[in-house]
Amino acid sequence: MKNSAILLVNCPDQKGINAAIADFIFRADGNILHADEHQDHERNLFLMRVEWELEGFKIDMREFAKQFQPIAERFRMDWRVALSSRRPKVAIFVSGHDHCLADLLYRHETGELACEIPIVVSNHPEVKRWADFYQIPLRVIPVTPENKREAERQELDLLRPLEIDLIVLARYMQILSPDFVREYSPNRIINIHHSFLPAFVGGKPHHQAFERGVKLIGATSHYVTEGLDDGPIIEQDVVRISHRDTVEDLIQKGRDLEKVVLSRAVRWHIESRILPYGNKTVIFD
Amino acid sequence: MKNSAILLVNCPDQKGINAAIADFIFRADGNILHADEHQDHERNLFLMRVEWELEGFKIDMREFAKQFQPIAERFRMDWRVALSSRRPKVAIFVSGHDHCLADLLYRHETGELACEIPIVVSNHPEVKRWADFYQIPLRVIPVTPENKREAERQELDLLRPLEIDLIVLARYMQILSPDFVREYSPNRIINIHHSFLPAFVGGKPHHQAFERGVKLIGATSHYVTEGLDDGPIIEQDVVRISHRDTVEDLIQKGRDLEKVVLSRAVRWHIESRILPYGNKTVIFD
Amino acid sequence: MKNSAILLVNCPDQKGINAAIADFIFRADGNILHADEHQDHERNLFLMRVEWELEGFKIDMREFAKQFQPIAERFRMDWRVALSSRRPKVAIFVSGHDHCLADLLYRHETGELACEIPIVVSNHPEVKRWADFYQIPLRVIPVTPENKREAERQELDLLRPLEIDLIVLARYMQILSPDFVREYSPNRIINIHHSFLPAFVGGKPHHQAFERGVKLIGATSHYVTEGLDDGPIIEQDVVRISHRDTVEDLIQKGRDLEKVVLSRAVRWHIESRILPYGNKTVIFD
Amino acid sequence: MKNSAILLVNCPDQKGINAAIADFIFRADGNILHADEHQDHERNLFLMRVEWELEGFKIDMREFAKQFQPIAERFRMDWRVALSSRRPKVAIFVSGHDHCLADLLYRHETGELACEIPIVVSNHPEVKRWADFYQIPLRVIPVTPENKREAERQELDLLRPLEIDLIVLARYMQILSPDFVREYSPNRIINIHHSFLPAFVGGKPHHQAFERGVKLIGATSHYVTEGLDDGPIIEQDVVRISHRDTVEDLIQKGRDLEKVVLSRAVRWHIESRILPYGNKTVIFD
Repeated sequence: MKNSAILLVNCPDQKGINAAIADFIFRADGNILHADEHQDHERNLFLMRVEWELEGFKIDMREFAKQFQPIAERFRMDWRVALSSRRPKVAIFVSGHDHCLADLLYRHETGELACEIPIVVSNHPEVKRWADFYQIPLRVIPVTPENKREAERQELDLLRPLEIDLIVLARYMQILSPDFVREYSPNRIINIHHSFLPAFVGGKPHHQAFERGVKLIGATSHYVTEGLDDGPIIEQDVVRISHRDTVEDLIQKGRDLEKVVLSRAVRWHIESRILPYGNKTVIFD
Repeated sequence: MKNSAILLVNCPDQKGINAAIADFIFRADGNILHADEHQDHERNLFLMRVEWELEGFKIDMREFAKQFQPIAERFRMDWRVALSSRRPKVAIFVSGHDHCLADLLYRHETGELACEIPIVVSNHPEVKRWADFYQIPLRVIPVTPENKREAERQELDLLRPLEIDLIVLARYMQILSPDFVREYSPNRIINIHHSFLPAFVGGKPHHQAFERGVKLIGATSHYVTEGLDDGPIIEQDVVRISHRDTVEDLIQKGRDLEKVVLSRAVRWHIESRILPYGNKTVIFD
Repeated sequence: MKNSAILLVNCPDQKGINAAIADFIFRADGNILHADEHQDHERNLFLMRVEWELEGFKIDMREFAKQFQPIAERFRMDWRVALSSRRPKVAIFVSGHDHCLADLLYRHETGELACEIPIVVSNHPEVKRWADFYQIPLRVIPVTPENKREAERQELDLLRPLEIDLIVLARYMQILSPDFVREYSPNRIINIHHSFLPAFVGGKPHHQAFERGVKLIGATSHYVTEGLDDGPIIEQDVVRISHRDTVEDLIQKGRDLEKVVLSRAVRWHIESRILPYGNKTVIFD
Repeated sequence: MKNSAILLVNCPDQKGINAAIADFIFRADGNILHADEHQDHERNLFLMRVEWELEGFKIDMREFAKQFQPIAERFRMDWRVALSSRRPKVAIFVSGHDHCLADLLYRHETGELACEIPIVVSNHPEVKRWADFYQIPLRVIPVTPENKREAERQELDLLRPLEIDLIVLARYMQILSPDFVREYSPNRIINIHHSFLPAFVGGKPHHQAFERGVKLIGATSHYVTEGLDDGPIIEQDVVRISHRDTVEDLIQKGRDLEKVVLSRAVRWHIESRILPYGNKTVIFD
């Protein structure tokens, strides 16, 4: 397994940022594996992802923040560093549609998703068989309009001691309250919406798509913000449909899309390839 | 060139429609080249396209309506027949963006679009070079907020004696008045909208897409109705974009999409492959 | 569940075939649900699929062949009829890569694949967990260069009493002998090849693709014939790759393709939507 | 217009290359606009593209080679630098199919292709109208089996004084001799092949695709080497076809593909985004 560090940087653009970072890594004997950057000229922003090998790197990563501090201050950086050896902890939330759950657990098992999955949370007990199959703990927390606040409290109590880094809503059909979202803000909850956003916001998007008579249907993975379906988009894809397709056909074709579009987002997040800024994302792929 | 007739039928679904139509054509010695049908079970509709060779067909097509009348009445059909030998007359409306115009005229020249194009109408004189290149008459009719009603009157006066069957809005940036649209209703005006409808209705969709941070941009060809951008969709397609793409890149990538998505719609209309019903279309491809 | 009959016809093209078939169904009070046809003008062939409701149909389907015989003879038809109520029996063969197996069993469970799966055959015991999970019988038959003939004999002995209609090679890494293929000829074995055929025939196509530096990789589902990788193609799809992708990335991206491309082929076969002729297929979708 | 320099580097991978380059540019007060890199771990290669603004850059670009020499030597770099202010000179070769020619000239006019096109060369006089329309000089040089060597000599005599940087074969149907190719080696001739290479190498690929019954057709742009159709691939794309499509339909659908796939390759070459190595290309997009 790769033993590397990944630095994500967001700061006002000016000359010398690349040189300062590259020089800092080189002086500590780091071998850069990949560096990519992006400038947003309208907002005068510099956004960068750089990954280097830790084998032979002369800075103890527990000291990294202290050592990097002068550069970060000089360029007024918003930054974070991730270690490939530290697998993020991911909680998956799911309701009755289990295709995304089954898909994520399969990819996790094959090593495609380099994370821990210490818990699956569901308001539907039927998904237990998947948790059992992959030997992942499941907690069933039913949600009703009446107990919703209490249910979210239980969920948060469950997640906190697990030190969850990311919540994945794998077709979880409950809308999270703003309080819940704030606990995992910014950008620590990923949702899959079964339409090509911003078309067909809200409920039953396949029915909406069918009614409108579109010729392609889509799926969108995005970070969850307090507003419904309007967080930063991570990935989207579409598939062709025709007049022959019923709503049920759309739902079935949608499943294949949703699996792929959600799993790409989760993978990129885990690999620290996503740099959200404003209401957008930069994907360093 | 193919010498064929195409029958498009829309009627309440019941047993025996296929048999009645196939038998009618067979008895007159017609050779069916292609037949396709669709049922909308929710609305109990039967929709069909059948094409047959006229070589050896024993009914004079001028008498077809009379001969077919008993079947049409029996099944309460909404129907029409088209002859491949009669090339539809198409007027192209265009403003300053000439890529769709240039593309349609090229496809017309190669025979991909089996129509006549007796006139190009523009509110921008710059497109004259394309009309000259392909030797198609051009009429420049400037449109301002003040003269809009008068301009549309001039356009209608121009089109009527040409017996135009279809108007193609090839990035024509003026909104047609309901009165104008009614003259070519239902479903005789095709527009290209530079977004994946219903996302980004209205003006400057590429700017809207850029602001929203979507990962794909689209184009939609549709029939024009009195409501803006909400007529029956004929065709859609998308192309992938990334954070690197500026609004100008979106506009450039959009051009390639728009050409393809509009030309498919025009081709299918000309070949009588589109059966609009409700606010949708069946494409018999 | 739909209770319908599907007739697939392949015969020399001439006038009156549609009329004869539609009339035959109508006289027995059948309601045609869908009819589609295709002519191959080069070979003068007429190819048709017609599906009708059996509710109210006045011919006992056990008598269908006898009743339909005069029409079949008159037009020299190669034909067969399938009943939606009779779910085809499918055997899945798999080796160590289990993604297509897991995918097919999931789709089977959701009802997307309307078939029975009485047996999974594998030369790798590891796939047992999937058979157990979905409660499908598994038979492990190891294959070595030495025992190959004997292993195939065991497989055939296993399949015959189960009256298997279709064998699906879901990344089964053994090449079937011509004798085995003949038992399920013509066109009763579907394979998934992990390349865009005819590019990269044979072994390790992802390695071949990587070496050649292609910008898209593909997958192809096809009927198995005695020649390697050259049977009639049923479905193909591709995904974009870049210079960043290693062979392992290609293998991983390929998995998503293979699942979709194989499952479409199996679904179409089960729904009698494929009409193979010559070395090609017509897909009535 | 952007006034920038682009450095392309190919060298053995080792620590400190990024730092050395970024530091070099920073010391001369260059503002890096974009930097991207790739490592080929199998071959231990480091490949990089870095673009910086020349406004305020303190090194006279005529002196760049001399100043950069120590770094280049230290890391044993194969490198070149391009200036966005120097528009490459492109010659387009075309035969009777003029769709790619018309498309490239349109894109050139809109500014999408930032190059000069001092000459179009054709063995078919019919393309004259496009040269006239866009006011580009045309030279018609007929090619027969007998005069081929002489024709190529005329072509080379024509191109040399124009100091052509890149030859684009826009459906030029003559095979260039190895001698000719060597004059523009390595990687200074781009061809569009109308198939998804390596499938359907050689002549009439659409006919080959039709015979094989594939479900997608493709197009491939690649650098021309002395071997037929086997140079480094730059870009590929595909479009779906069905049993309904005749060879003529394939040819028509192929045209749309070829235009897009060729124009992307030409654009990337002009913008110094392609780094060929071995028989592959890195695309810094």
